[in-house]
Amino acid sequence: MSGRRNGNGSDKAVIARLEGLGRAVAEAARKGKNPTLEIPIRALSNVKFNDKRSIIELGDETQSRLFLNVAMAKKFMQTMLVAAGCKEFVESGKTTSLRDLFYRLKHTLPGTTENTFDEQEESDPIIEDVEVTLDTLREELHLFASRKGSMVGPITIRDSGDQIDLARMGSGGWAVPSIVEPSVIQFVRHEAKYVLLIEKEAVWVRFNEDKFWKREKCIILQSGGQPPRGVRRLVQRLVNELKLPLFVLVDNDPWGLYIYSVVKQGSINLAYESMRMAVPAARFIGLSTFDREEFKIAKDLTIALDEQDRSRTKQMLDYPWFQKKPWQRELKEMLASGVKMELEALSTKRNISFITEEYLPRKLKEKKWLD
Amino acid sequence: MSGRRNGNGSDKAVIARLEGLGRAVAEAARKGKNPTLEIPIRALSNVKFNDKRSIIELGDETQSRLFLNVAMAKKFMQTMLVAAGCKEFVESGKTTSLRDLFYRLKHTLPGTTENTFDEQEESDPIIEDVEVTLDTLREELHLFASRKGSMVGPITIRDSGDQIDLARMGSGGWAVPSIVEPSVIQFVRHEAKYVLLIEKEAVWVRFNEDKFWKREKCIILQSGGQPPRGVRRLVQRLVNELKLPLFVLVDNDPWGLYIYSVVKQGSINLAYESMRMAVPAARFIGLSTFDREEFKIAKDLTIALDEQDRSRTKQMLDYPWFQKKPWQRELKEMLASGVKMELEALSTKRNISFITEEYLPRKLKEKKWLD
Repeated sequence: MSGRRNGNGSDKAVIARLEGLGRAVAEAARKGKNPTLEIPIRALSNVKFNDKRSIIELGDETQSRLFLNVAMAKKFMQTMLVAAGCKEFVESGKTTSLRDLFYRLKHTLPGTTENTFDEQEESDPIIEDVEVTLDTLREELHLFASRKGSMVGPITIRDSGDQIDLARMGSGGWAVPSIVEPSVIQFVRHEAKYVLLIEKEAVWVRFNEDKFWKREKCIILQSGGQPPRGVRRLVQRLVNELKLPLFVLVDNDPWGLYIYSVVKQGSINLAYESMRMAVPAARFIGLSTFDREEFKIAKDLTIALDEQDRSRTKQMLDYPWFQKKPWQRELKEMLASGVKMELEALSTKRNISFITEEYLPRKLKEKKWLD
Repeated sequence: MSGRRNGNGSDKAVIARLEGLGRAVAEAARKGKNPTLEIPIRALSNVKFNDKRSIIELGDETQSRLFLNVAMAKKFMQTMLVAAGCKEFVESGKTTSLRDLFYRLKHTLPGTTENTFDEQEESDPIIEDVEVTLDTLREELHLFASRKGSMVGPITIRDSGDQIDLARMGSGGWAVPSIVEPSVIQFVRHEAKYVLLIEKEAVWVRFNEDKFWKREKCIILQSGGQPPRGVRRLVQRLVNELKLPLFVLVDNDPWGLYIYSVVKQGSINLAYESMRMAVPAARFIGLSTFDREEFKIAKDLTIALDEQDRSRTKQMLDYPWFQKKPWQRELKEMLASGVKMELEALSTKRNISFITEEYLPRKLKEKKWLD
């Protein structure tokens, strides 16, 4: 959708869009017309891979949500409630959670036994409707998701007015918040040469403890599995604004590859936010199936692929962004070998710091990554 | 167990204990005796509530683990492997995860098809055996658990040599590491009057965004549900070393009360570490069942108790530390009301910051807590 701005809206711009939505509905009602919302369809049928941009995007199809329609009236009302609730948050300059918004909007309609919302499962998709209809992100609507992940490295940031030197964060690190828009987080100065996103918390601890980021001048982030929105968005900003390469370090299994894939191209479920989250230039630095031989990982440290692993890997062979030869080779070798490996397999019997002192430096030096 | 030191061992002291274990085994073997380990029993039968200390403790019963015994030989070998592995970590000054230790110790015994360990489920309990046998904690053995939780407040700490002002941590906060022993984390100076431990991440964000900790001069920590070991240990150190009161803010449901209970008295599963983790002086500041009336929380924002909630609450009525009248009143009222509430129920329809501006200040002022 070439016309989609997909974010970067200031609070003022977001309020204007929310007001525009309300005004259109009010005007239709005044003119005796049926108030209608045009909501882009968030389904596989309306998702496509944009080859040029190399991200998963939402298409142009929309569905109409009518006020005067028995099947749609409740959802229409809910959409208006969510938009009004978000407007209140943006105007107050405060942020809140999806659950909090649900609670704020939940009430029994006067004179009825009907609730505006019964479960959060009802309000969450409505929030996504509002995001996609207004071409804005939930973070811009001042709604936050779960927080996970921490970050250290030779970079000084400003977070809500506090200047923080991420080279002096000890063993804990700076906890990455859910909302990392430029209005909250600014990059002050840095000496980083690249960003390293690590799937596993325990591996990040090893990299931090060994001060890998100091020696290598890089920013290390951990995502605790599939990175939450805050981490993905922050990584994208680091890459785009500071022009840094991104390396992704995950387990050698279909889940690890899927994490890399989402970081790089976005996901089908959240295709409408790819432009704000995806990093098409992301490089896969490991663990590669070929590392088993290259780094002599013992057979007893590998784990047999199960049926689900095999079918997930076969699916990935068909992904448009895995069509390059090296990726086909990688995926086919995983199937042929019949095994997967965790990053921890690198730390056995040898030096505890093998991964930071030998594995990664050698892979970087020999440019042994896939993109 | 009055003789239990339960921690506070320096690396040197821990190495001495690990070496003592190995020496005893080697000497028995040299004398032609059957090497034997005496391991305190970690089961409900050997757990008791210490009224005087007000914590759940391990009793004095032990079980013998014999080397020359077909049923025990493998576990004996595994115990020695874990102890040797930990010694290596402590000596190198590095830390690692439970999973990493499993990988390091896993291998096929030469000339056999027998693995030292097949699954991490085998090595984890052995680690607990070593902890309890040596009267040391896994953190002292340089093993870390999962990390969760963040912290801000008017306190400056030193973490691995870096001085960090937790009053200048922006929206993210300092990520609490898993190992927070005095060798890693030191308290430099502070102006805090109390510590507030918040169950829910989203609620912590509200408290941080509203700069509640600045206005109230308190340290706020979030635990993301049941606090991980690092958070519990850090809270205990803040309370003991800085002589600060601790308030715990949780949902009004059996799970929230259980979280409070574990923070205060320790858990049955991990009774052997109560002395290092439990904070008997912890105060329950909310959400109380009586807050529903006190703060006029609408009926449609409460959730009906289910069968499990009822039976959990009835169990808690029998806990020794819930025998005080106000606690019995609290628990019985929850059963009588038939409903539970989430902290988010406080933010509806009123001011978004009701919880930080009215609810908590009033409860503190009126001393409306339970302990």
